Amino acid sequence: MERPDAMQRVRRAHTETLLAQLRSAGPLSRAELIRLTGLSRTTLFDIIGDLITRGVVVEREPELSGQRSRGRPSSTVSLNPSAGRIIGIDLARVTITVVVATLSHDILARGTRAVALTAGPARRADAAGKLVDDLVRDHQIDLRALEAIGIGLPGLVSGRGRSAGASSSSTTAKQISDRIQDRYGVAVVTDNNSRLAALAEGTWGAARDVRDAVYVRWSDGVGGGFIVDGQLARGAHGAAGEIGHVSVEPDGDPCPCGGRGCLELLIRPTALIEQCARRGVVVQDPADLVAQTHAGEPTVRDVVRGAATLLGQVLSGSVVQLDPGKIAIGGVLAQATDDTVLEPVRAEIARLAIPRHPRRVDVVRAQFGDEGGAMGAVAAALRLTATDSLLPTLPMG
Amino acid sequence: MERPDAMQRVRRAHTETLLAQLRSAGPLSRAELIRLTGLSRTTLFDIIGDLITRGVVVEREPELSGQRSRGRPSSTVSLNPSAGRIIGIDLARVTITVVVATLSHDILARGTRAVALTAGPARRADAAGKLVDDLVRDHQIDLRALEAIGIGLPGLVSGRGRSAGASSSSTTAKQISDRIQDRYGVAVVTDNNSRLAALAEGTWGAARDVRDAVYVRWSDGVGGGFIVDGQLARGAHGAAGEIGHVSVEPDGDPCPCGGRGCLELLIRPTALIEQCARRGVVVQDPADLVAQTHAGEPTVRDVVRGAATLLGQVLSGSVVQLDPGKIAIGGVLAQATDDTVLEPVRAEIARLAIPRHPRRVDVVRAQFGDEGGAMGAVAAALRLTATDSLLPTLPMG
Repeated sequence: MERPDAMQRVRRAHTETLLAQLRSAGPLSRAELIRLTGLSRTTLFDIIGDLITRGVVVEREPELSGQRSRGRPSSTVSLNPSAGRIIGIDLARVTITVVVATLSHDILARGTRAVALTAGPARRADAAGKLVDDLVRDHQIDLRALEAIGIGLPGLVSGRGRSAGASSSSTTAKQISDRIQDRYGVAVVTDNNSRLAALAEGTWGAARDVRDAVYVRWSDGVGGGFIVDGQLARGAHGAAGEIGHVSVEPDGDPCPCGGRGCLELLIRPTALIEQCARRGVVVQDPADLVAQTHAGEPTVRDVVRGAATLLGQVLSGSVVQLDPGKIAIGGVLAQATDDTVLEPVRAEIARLAIPRHPRRVDVVRAQFGDEGGAMGAVAAALRLTATDSLLPTLPMG
Repeated sequence: MERPDAMQRVRRAHTETLLAQLRSAGPLSRAELIRLTGLSRTTLFDIIGDLITRGVVVEREPELSGQRSRGRPSSTVSLNPSAGRIIGIDLARVTITVVVATLSHDILARGTRAVALTAGPARRADAAGKLVDDLVRDHQIDLRALEAIGIGLPGLVSGRGRSAGASSSSTTAKQISDRIQDRYGVAVVTDNNSRLAALAEGTWGAARDVRDAVYVRWSDGVGGGFIVDGQLARGAHGAAGEIGHVSVEPDGDPCPCGGRGCLELLIRPTALIEQCARRGVVVQDPADLVAQTHAGEPTVRDVVRGAATLLGQVLSGSVVQLDPGKIAIGGVLAQATDDTVLEPVRAEIARLAIPRHPRRVDVVRAQFGDEGGAMGAVAAALRLTATDSLLPTLPMG
């Protein structure tokens, strides 16, 4: 297996150790930090200097209350309560969602805006930038403390590393990322927006308490993401998570992806609305599909239940292969009734995923709605700043 | 997401950094190591002391050749060429395989022995111990340097951590592990043997050059393992990798696992031999099945090709979900001709796994044969000793 840059990994581990100490112990002197982290003076001072420059930690002069009887009292280092800013952007096909957060996970502002399906990369990037600028102005946010930006995009995105060095498989992703980076001059990380929604669920949402999870976004696109031992699986070409393109009918209808009988073709809302129409029931749109399951319309319920059964069969395969502790289902269809969505999925997993060795796989609704992609972009940007040791414990704003 | 013990992780990273320096630079003084690793004197000396105790590194007195003109010449620390021993054991259903290796990856001895299918955990553990003892005696191996033991077992095994603290889902695994640990008094790690074969392929074998890989063992049991971003996926209950129990016919025949229409039921050698018999062709056993593909027997070739097509359909789903760079196929059936095994798998992946976004997924034979599980057990035990930074570069003996 190839190795990531060992020294960079070690530097990151050092930084995490230091931040973990500050989080659990509060303000500490440099001498105390040397003792607690096991790092050399040179390494420690270097990391602290970097964190101070970035505004992640602050150094405070000692109080002169006379508690210390001998020698010069030490200054202390602590986490910066007004630490740097993180921006998460989900640039979906027709909607832009932006979340502005702090390094300590307070959300300062959020907003959405429509974007034309036909808009090119430059126009999309500029529309996102305009939304960010409006939010910053309206909420009087100081962007001098801007630390990093995460961007979620539909389709294939190679999410490794910063945009400057990433080998994006998509020119569009590169163009958007570069334009946002030029505008704000900070590190930018891009990833598939469904995968980022999985990261948001794994970090703060429905799957925050397990290390192995599957997230499915059931909307007109059926996408998802896998958390494997605490890490978002990206794959060798940045294409992991495309659960909607698992073929359930290998000799079925052609899919726009070039494959045949893909799950997405069979269970996306438009397909279900067509099925209802063929059975004489008019459904206006995906929201109406959901509403009619709640109203108890029998044909709609039957159609959705059938689709959830297919989804459950595909997820049974995921369970057998990856053994997640939790499956979180998001997207518009996740809002349909439990008995039409969650229960058929649970039933298929119980029936097909090695029933002789029953295991606990919770099937639940995702916690984040339309904001999942942008929240995941924040999580990805936080990881980029090597402060992800902060993630699990600090409260969300 | 839950966090592993942060300090243990950091200690391990420190150890890896130190060993990486020794590997690339050769013997180094403690002063040089402090400079190169960024660790404090206390931390570094503590880790070196531990590694010397364990025999992983050795300290050498300076040579008095007079090269250094000033001050006392320093002693140097280097990797121990006769470093500790690692034992890998694959306790499969009817065969025990043992590999004895050094920390620097030289194989000192290997052996196999039959074990009764009906033998219980104690008898299996003792038979493995007897084989180890015979190998040690025959090859005059000094087991005082024994560092760790890896054990591969069929079925569900929770592979996290050492046996002492592991929550094994299988009492058998726990009994075997405890008995081996009592016998040798060193750390023992257990895992599913197909998953360990995946780890062997990812560490030294067919998938050593990628960070995301799928391994399939195509024998009477159809198992496997997934390498995700360089790590073996174990899952929330130690059950990841059971690719043979992906249901390809959700309403098909019942499988002993309790599911229906599992891949294993449809493609295992005994099923293929039955298919051949129904078509009037006598096949003796799995080896004969393979031989007849090479001899060009058309019915046998057709049957194997059909099974490989099904396997390819399931693997297309794995590719879409996990985006591996390589798929390694092992087990007895992997020895059949390319056009009956590898090519149908490649064809289904090309046809079904998002063809509009073609990616490079090499489908190849696994490198390790029957020894894969035991070699993977060595790899798992090496990782347990926190010396896995040694893995990718040192040559195999």
